[in-house]
Amino acid sequence: MAFHLLQRNREGAGTLAGAIVDAVRNVGQCRICRNLSETESCSICGNVKRDSAVLCVVESPSDVVAIETTAGYDGKYFVLHGRLSPIDGVGPVELGLDRLREHVVQTEIREVILATNPTVEGEATAHYISEALTGTGVSVTRIAHGVPVGGELEYVDGGTITHALRGRTSVD
Amino acid sequence: MAFHLLQRNREGAGTLAGAIVDAVRNVGQCRICRNLSETESCSICGNVKRDSAVLCVVESPSDVVAIETTAGYDGKYFVLHGRLSPIDGVGPVELGLDRLREHVVQTEIREVILATNPTVEGEATAHYISEALTGTGVSVTRIAHGVPVGGELEYVDGGTITHALRGRTSVD
Repeated sequence: MAFHLLQRNREGAGTLAGAIVDAVRNVGQCRICRNLSETESCSICGNVKRDSAVLCVVESPSDVVAIETTAGYDGKYFVLHGRLSPIDGVGPVELGLDRLREHVVQTEIREVILATNPTVEGEATAHYISEALTGTGVSVTRIAHGVPVGGELEYVDGGTITHALRGRTSVD
Repeated sequence: MAFHLLQRNREGAGTLAGAIVDAVRNVGQCRICRNLSETESCSICGNVKRDSAVLCVVESPSDVVAIETTAGYDGKYFVLHGRLSPIDGVGPVELGLDRLREHVVQTEIREVILATNPTVEGEATAHYISEALTGTGVSVTRIAHGVPVGGELEYVDGGTITHALRGRTSVD
């Protein structure tokens, strides 16, 4: 890309540089869900057609994009911008957990879906949040762990098979 | 391997050939679960310490190995040796579904776990078996579909994210 811009498209390089400067200057965090946004509150938080009773907690803005592309979720989000990691100095304050609790208490949220990654840190973060939300009266749920769609049992790791067997659901 | 045997270990090659002939001659199917076995009924079916009330239906003997290595399941198995595929001439008879139904009716099985692969054919097979078992009184369950352990939401396909969100479970 660098060679293309320098050899054939010096004007384009200037446009690109300008766009990057603009993005750095204008893109901040949504005041409600902490997702990246150019406005004070983002388009998802401002959308009245979305279900305000369900809140999906994710680790990063790219997770919001991943879930949005499935078109299967119409609730709102809360972005942590990381996961609990005491060694790196990331604690509950950095993840905005006080703001999350406040948000849950003040609004009509009925369910908080913990969609942090199924890694060790992600699980620890999910556990911490579920503890932090006790007493608020919302129901706290965790996304399903199991065999990915299109996968073959034979090539899936043991931990996932164990989760898939334990989390089996009734067929009606 | 071929070069090693021919250049350095011609005796080993004879042993290997003998072992393969032995395997082909002696390894058949277990009369109860259809898993590969050297005896008429396999070591899993004959193990009285395993739970006879739970039956896990899998596509192939390698799936049995995958589940056994997790050490998280202590029920019995039923091996289909394939999945429904009318184009390839694989129907209910080839998968031994009449034998499965007979087995479920005649023994004290309470739950049948459908652990066929989460592919299109695997899902169709699971659906067919659950229909075929109606009226037998057993509870039919399906392994969980979701995000694999250790995975990152961002790199998981849309179908799996949809399943993971839909199959979310309550955190206690």
